Amino acid sequence: MQTDSYVIQMNGSPVYPKVLDVHVNIQRPNSIEKMKNRKPRWAVRASEMSKKTFNPIRAIVDTMKAKPNPDKPMIALSIGDPTVFGNLPTDDEVARAMKDAIDSQKYNGYAPSIGYQCSREVIAKYYTCPEAPLEAKDVILTSGCSQAIELALAVLANPGQNILVPCPGFSLYKTLALSLGIEVKLYNLIPEKSWEIDVKQMESLVDEKTACIIINNPSNPCGSVFSKKHLQKILAVASRQCVPILTDEIYGDMVFEYGAFQALAPLSTNVPVLSCGGLAKRWLVPGWRMGWILIHDRKDIFGKEIREGLVRLSQRILGPCTIVQGALDHIIKRTPQHFYENTINFIKSNADLCYSTLSSVPGLCPVRPAGAMYLMVGIDMEHFPEFESDVDFTERMISEQSVFCLPATCFDYPNYFRVVLTVPEEMMVEACRRIREFCLEHYQGGEVTQELECDK
Amino acid sequence: MQTDSYVIQMNGSPVYPKVLDVHVNIQRPNSIEKMKNRKPRWAVRASEMSKKTFNPIRAIVDTMKAKPNPDKPMIALSIGDPTVFGNLPTDDEVARAMKDAIDSQKYNGYAPSIGYQCSREVIAKYYTCPEAPLEAKDVILTSGCSQAIELALAVLANPGQNILVPCPGFSLYKTLALSLGIEVKLYNLIPEKSWEIDVKQMESLVDEKTACIIINNPSNPCGSVFSKKHLQKILAVASRQCVPILTDEIYGDMVFEYGAFQALAPLSTNVPVLSCGGLAKRWLVPGWRMGWILIHDRKDIFGKEIREGLVRLSQRILGPCTIVQGALDHIIKRTPQHFYENTINFIKSNADLCYSTLSSVPGLCPVRPAGAMYLMVGIDMEHFPEFESDVDFTERMISEQSVFCLPATCFDYPNYFRVVLTVPEEMMVEACRRIREFCLEHYQGGEVTQELECDK
Repeated sequence: MQTDSYVIQMNGSPVYPKVLDVHVNIQRPNSIEKMKNRKPRWAVRASEMSKKTFNPIRAIVDTMKAKPNPDKPMIALSIGDPTVFGNLPTDDEVARAMKDAIDSQKYNGYAPSIGYQCSREVIAKYYTCPEAPLEAKDVILTSGCSQAIELALAVLANPGQNILVPCPGFSLYKTLALSLGIEVKLYNLIPEKSWEIDVKQMESLVDEKTACIIINNPSNPCGSVFSKKHLQKILAVASRQCVPILTDEIYGDMVFEYGAFQALAPLSTNVPVLSCGGLAKRWLVPGWRMGWILIHDRKDIFGKEIREGLVRLSQRILGPCTIVQGALDHIIKRTPQHFYENTINFIKSNADLCYSTLSSVPGLCPVRPAGAMYLMVGIDMEHFPEFESDVDFTERMISEQSVFCLPATCFDYPNYFRVVLTVPEEMMVEACRRIREFCLEHYQGGEVTQELECDK
Repeated sequence: MQTDSYVIQMNGSPVYPKVLDVHVNIQRPNSIEKMKNRKPRWAVRASEMSKKTFNPIRAIVDTMKAKPNPDKPMIALSIGDPTVFGNLPTDDEVARAMKDAIDSQKYNGYAPSIGYQCSREVIAKYYTCPEAPLEAKDVILTSGCSQAIELALAVLANPGQNILVPCPGFSLYKTLALSLGIEVKLYNLIPEKSWEIDVKQMESLVDEKTACIIINNPSNPCGSVFSKKHLQKILAVASRQCVPILTDEIYGDMVFEYGAFQALAPLSTNVPVLSCGGLAKRWLVPGWRMGWILIHDRKDIFGKEIREGLVRLSQRILGPCTIVQGALDHIIKRTPQHFYENTINFIKSNADLCYSTLSSVPGLCPVRPAGAMYLMVGIDMEHFPEFESDVDFTERMISEQSVFCLPATCFDYPNYFRVVLTVPEEMMVEACRRIREFCLEHYQGGEVTQELECDK
């Protein structure tokens, strides 16, 4: 149903501005087939692929016309970028690593399109473990985790095939898949079970055209972290159905309970896994565009073909910035442990604060996160009859309270909104206060104390 | 004919390793259609797109099995990377700009996918001129010039359409086009006319499915630089046929005669042009992956649609590294003029040296370059009956003389080879000496002095 409404949106909202034609100004059919007997005239159209490259967050946010309340300074809890408020700088060692790489003058030329051998070695050593050994040959460096996901998808799936994608889920999976002509099937995450996957429903979606299952752990937008047991269930499905897994672990190790993050691949004995990650979140430098794919293929199911396919695809635009590649060794080895801990502690503290405040707000059902940097909040829409949807709800929260949360319709999950937890604490406090005020003003019907309902 | 042999190579050489199947080990047909009645079993195949992403240079070079002569140190004149020998470092101001950007801590977060507004402004100001005014909105920052070309192609052409590509030409155009299902039609450059385009033949290739013409000026691999008059002829074709131009000007301003480079767009009154460039060559930092597209569309023929298409496509993997973006202003404004001049003078000196030495070598016909960093050398194959092709010729030059030049079959142009001119002067001298020795040994028939023939 969510898929349908998405597809309708895709078909209903494309922008086809008139082409200003300097020779003859007529409307032309969009089909190449009808262009025979060509008399030259200007009619430059954007490609189908560019039209199919659809970013739902942009599409929804750009149509939100709300202006913030001029009496209250704006607080944006919408942007998944931990650096925007300046309260979470990267570590000095990370900056130093970059400057050393520049001074060395060794990293100005082209690297191989999949990255320097030595930089790939660094990542392999960092992530290798006895159950899932990695060597440099198993690592492909990419321009951010986005390109890692793009390459992994593009090598595994053909147009006409389908992939399984989490719902709610990070919108890029769908954007990339649809642009490549790959169908998206949404599997459900269950908020009542801390956003674990409905594994049966997921398995029911697999058919002969399923090219891969995308797993995102820890999750954007849910902030959930899967247990070892749950990951084993997921692997069992993949193994039974013989479908490879693309796992997005960009928030790997960003979990509130020490050691709670379990990477997927080491649990697999036969399922081939492409694990995507990068520097963006853990090292707090998303703009640097340093990502990677770890190829886990202990039964040689991907084999030479997938590896070669990844190399070929990487040659289209070449790899990430060589300076960041040159700095990787130093970044990985010298970033102090307390840097990671400080980040986690800060996010956890905001998560606790936000969760406990919003838990007591009538009509809201926050789901306690365990990692990443997000918190999802359910809206009990029947108690807010003024609002048509989560988009409407969040829009009004901007115009009345100058607080901007992303409506979860952006993640194919209506009636929720996402809170980003990396803002300075005083902002978090103030934002939660205003959200509370907003809900108290608009809440209708029933008892105002309804904490039991939410206490999952 | 060259196209045909290329296509045969495509069909003849794909690698289909057997998939190790952990359930049942049978050979399966490659078609999705035949996968109905699926009993799960492992059969992960690389996508068609990954197989279609074909890099002819890699394919040819990887099959060259020649080992260098152990008595002579290897001299590689094959790599189009000016930084490999360490003799052409970037300017200190460029390095300082990067370090300042790092220290500022302002450029760690996500930039907009098309780049920071202020960085786009810097590029717009640098390239604007009264005939072709540019603003920030006309600039899209990309991950290297390769991604600029990829985005430009991907927005202009649909699968089934065609593009016109120079022959000889940089192989990436064809690699990207074929991977996107876009047909490539080669137009001829004429060595006797300093590699000017055979404009009539180019125009004859245009049909109703032609999505754009790619122009590369100054040229890789030719080192040629088009005159204003020649560019006007090219624009006349585009204007008559109503076909937009994608111009690759990554070697812009890298010309031996001061002021000899003329950008294409300022000469156009109506033809819409996407001009691709970047820091790579002029600032000697190809690994940093900073490129851009300049949108020239004074008659609003591209209109909103192409601009929006480029923005959408840029959201797939986001833009270039933010540190380099943050350094752009400083790099553009403070790199001293003598840095550019030194680079040019160095390349020109090597060009003169190489051209004059090889001009007197029996059986070789070098074409004098006017810019970029390459020189193309014709091989009079009938005087070298031992060798089947330019690939064979250059392979033997490796095993006998330890000199590696790229056979121009890599650029769809047999019977030539390409010399890279950025190597240290003493290497250039020694390489030319060895090439001469090689030719004198293998030249057969006719007078050994045949300079007139080559003196174009």
